[in-house]
Formats: sequence, structure tokens, C-alpha cells
Amino acid sequence: MSESDAGSTANDAIAILGGTGDQGPGLALRFAKAGRSVVIGSRKAEKAEKVAREILEAVPGASVTGFENSEATRRAQIVILSVPFEHTASTVKSLRPVLTEGQILVSMGVPLAAAIGDGATRTLGLWQGSCAEMVKALVPDGVLVVSAFQNISAHRLRDLDHAVECDVVVSGPKAAREAVMALCPLVPGLRAIDGGPLSNARIVEEITALLIGLNIRYKVPEGFGIRFTGLPER
Amino acid sequence: MSESDAGSTANDAIAILGGTGDQGPGLALRFAKAGRSVVIGSRKAEKAEKVAREILEAVPGASVTGFENSEATRRAQIVILSVPFEHTASTVKSLRPVLTEGQILVSMGVPLAAAIGDGATRTLGLWQGSCAEMVKALVPDGVLVVSAFQNISAHRLRDLDHAVECDVVVSGPKAAREAVMALCPLVPGLRAIDGGPLSNARIVEEITALLIGLNIRYKVPEGFGIRFTGLPER
Repeated sequence: MSESDAGSTANDAIAILGGTGDQGPGLALRFAKAGRSVVIGSRKAEKAEKVAREILEAVPGASVTGFENSEATRRAQIVILSVPFEHTASTVKSLRPVLTEGQILVSMGVPLAAAIGDGATRTLGLWQGSCAEMVKALVPDGVLVVSAFQNISAHRLRDLDHAVECDVVVSGPKAAREAVMALCPLVPGLRAIDGGPLSNARIVEEITALLIGLNIRYKVPEGFGIRFTGLPER
Repeated sequence: MSESDAGSTANDAIAILGGTGDQGPGLALRFAKAGRSVVIGSRKAEKAEKVAREILEAVPGASVTGFENSEATRRAQIVILSVPFEHTASTVKSLRPVLTEGQILVSMGVPLAAAIGDGATRTLGLWQGSCAEMVKALVPDGVLVVSAFQNISAHRLRDLDHAVECDVVVSGPKAAREAVMALCPLVPGLRAIDGGPLSNARIVEEITALLIGLNIRYKVPEGFGIRFTGLPER
């Protein structure tokens, strides 16, 4: 495939929308560090380009570019939604014209009650059951929605000198889920866990609120993570 | 305090109601092994006595007795509810006359949809938010309800030759929460995590459904557990 195919989704680039927030740039940094092509998306192209330049400074030689969200979505087969929860629905709606059948859209949002001015240690109840299922209800048929990456500390993602030490529960349709699980080992300390159907996002998203409460009670600004014990060796 | 005080709640015995199920006898076995007095409760005294004898066989010299639920509740300051979820409300209602102010009632139930004939990898929505909060709504004023022990594999509890390897998120009123947290180190491999207010049981209970799904997908009959990473050393 030539460079002129960059506009197609048949490539191994990873788009990260909302790459100007907390978790987003952290994931982008780690994927870039692992040698993957990263496309930062933002509502304004200039902001995305700025984040891309910052990642390039931190990881010289990285393949990282910045575009407005729709253009970023056109440039990757796997698109990670890292926008604030309260912008999730509007962002997904705006992407409908460009999302294509078979494209993978990863929801990492959590409906923290902070979105309505209440605390980040509690969640809102969503009609669809979870942020990921809300996203699934909004995308065109054939777009594969996967839930992942909710429980990772942004601080730990950005600290390239240390492993992240967190399991990532990935749920959604099988082939898409496996494609996202395959991204986890790119980040030192992340381990993919097969989280089954998308509806399990209901549980995984809630865990983030619990972790935020633990961060506060135990005064761990770097952030807690989770590990599952008893996993068989592969 | 003399042995004749056994009927008072001012003692360090631990009562486990529903000690004839899965997790219950496992916890009882572990606490007995650690040298604590254990009182097994069941709807029928004979069943409780039978479990007590079995524990005594496994842990010779253990202090373990069996009684009908109400009598067991009278005999311990900390009472752990390990009845099937669908019997939780009726059991708690039956205990109202004997529960006393300051007594600690530990909810370890999970509203798995198996209770209504659906799967154990999904949960029911409860009006009060969680099994623990439902229990809280049913006890007399002054009884301290704590949520704990939901995520521990019964199989691993019963296997005295191995550590359990699981964190226990304990939530509820502070002093009672700390009393239950202090029980965790009695079981090798259990670590107490300060889970804050009782409402966090909503999240902790859901994690059990996720773990059951993982057990199935990964074919781990011994059961998964969880650990939090990033906890500061004490």
C-alpha cells in the first residue's frame, strides 16, 4: 500500500479523537512510541496538529499527524473515542457520514456524574446501559463498536519511563474485540482481557468511578489500576 | 469476658449466615483456620451444625458452632450474610427482632440475574442500587451495614493449601468498614481495600458478574480474582 492510500481505512494507523484531553494524548504517545502510525483528531485541526507536534517532540521520528475529527476518522481503521463523556453523542453523530462498514470505533468514555456537575466517583445511568452501548446505538450499521481503555490512569500513560500496570477489559463483537486486544501489548504493562459482549462495558465503565474514589481516599495522584488474578498463562 | 457471655454480641466471634452455601463455608473455614470463633447460621439448625462439624474436621480444634440464623446472629458482633441473593430480603427481615444497635451486618450478595432464571454473567437492577443498600434499607436503625467479600472465588476459599489472591473492596460506615477490613488479613492472599461509602457496592457487586463471565470465557473453574495496582505501601 502506498502513502497515497492514507485516506483509506485499510491501514494500520490508529486514530484518537479528543486527543487533546487526558487519556487520549497518553494513549497516542504510547502507540507512537511503539512505532504505530497515530492520527490525532480534534474539533479544531489546529489543536490536533499541536498535540501531534508535542508527541513528535517526545517521540522523535514518530508517525503522528493531527486533523479535524472527521478527517482523522477517514485515516484509520481503528478509531478511539477519547472525547469528554458529555461530547460523546454529538461527536459520534458528526462522524456518521464518514464511518464505514467494518471500521472499529472504540469507546473509552465513562458516564461520570461530573458531566452534570456532580462527582467523578459516581456514574449516571444511561438508557442504553453504558457509554459504549450509547455509541453503538448512534453509529451506522456495520460499524464495530468496542469498549476498552476506561480504567487506565492518564498520568501513568504519559509517564513513558514506567509501565502502566493495568488490565484492559475489551468487549464487543469478536473480531473487532480481538483487533483492539492486540493493541494492548503495544503499551508496556497493559494486558488485554477478553471482556465478552459489549454490554459488559456497563461494569467496566463503573470500575473507573471506583478507581477515582480510591485515588482520592488513598491519595494516589498517579492513579490506581486493576489486575485480574487467576488468568491462565497462554 | 467469660464464656457465659457467648449470647452477647460483645465478643469477637464471626457469624456466617447461609453458611451452607458456596462462599459462606469457605469464609468460615478460613476464619476458623485463623483461630477466630465462627458461628454458622442456617434456616435449619441441623444444617448449620452439620457444616460446623465439617469445618471442625478440616480444622481440628477450631471454635465453630452451628445455630438457626437468629440464634447465630445473637452470638456475634459481626454477622456475614452469605445466603443466596433471592433469600437476602426475607432473611434480613427475619433478623430484625434480634439485630442490635452497633452490630455489623456484612452484605456479600450479588443480584445476579440467575436469581430469576437468567444468566449469572448479568445482574438485576435493584431499586436501592445494590444488594448491600437493599439490606441497609431493611435493617433497624443503628445496625451498621457493610459491603464486602463479593468477588472472592468460593473454590479458592475452600482450598486451604493456597492463598486466595484477591482484593476485597469494603464499603460502608467508617468504623464498621474498618472492623470488616481488619478481618481480611486473616485469610492468606486477601487484602482489604477501603471502598468508601456503601453505595460503591453497586460497582463491586457488578464486578462479580464480570468475573463469572471471565471464568467461563477463560475456562478457569477455580475462579478469577481482582487486584488493584498502585496501592501505596503502608
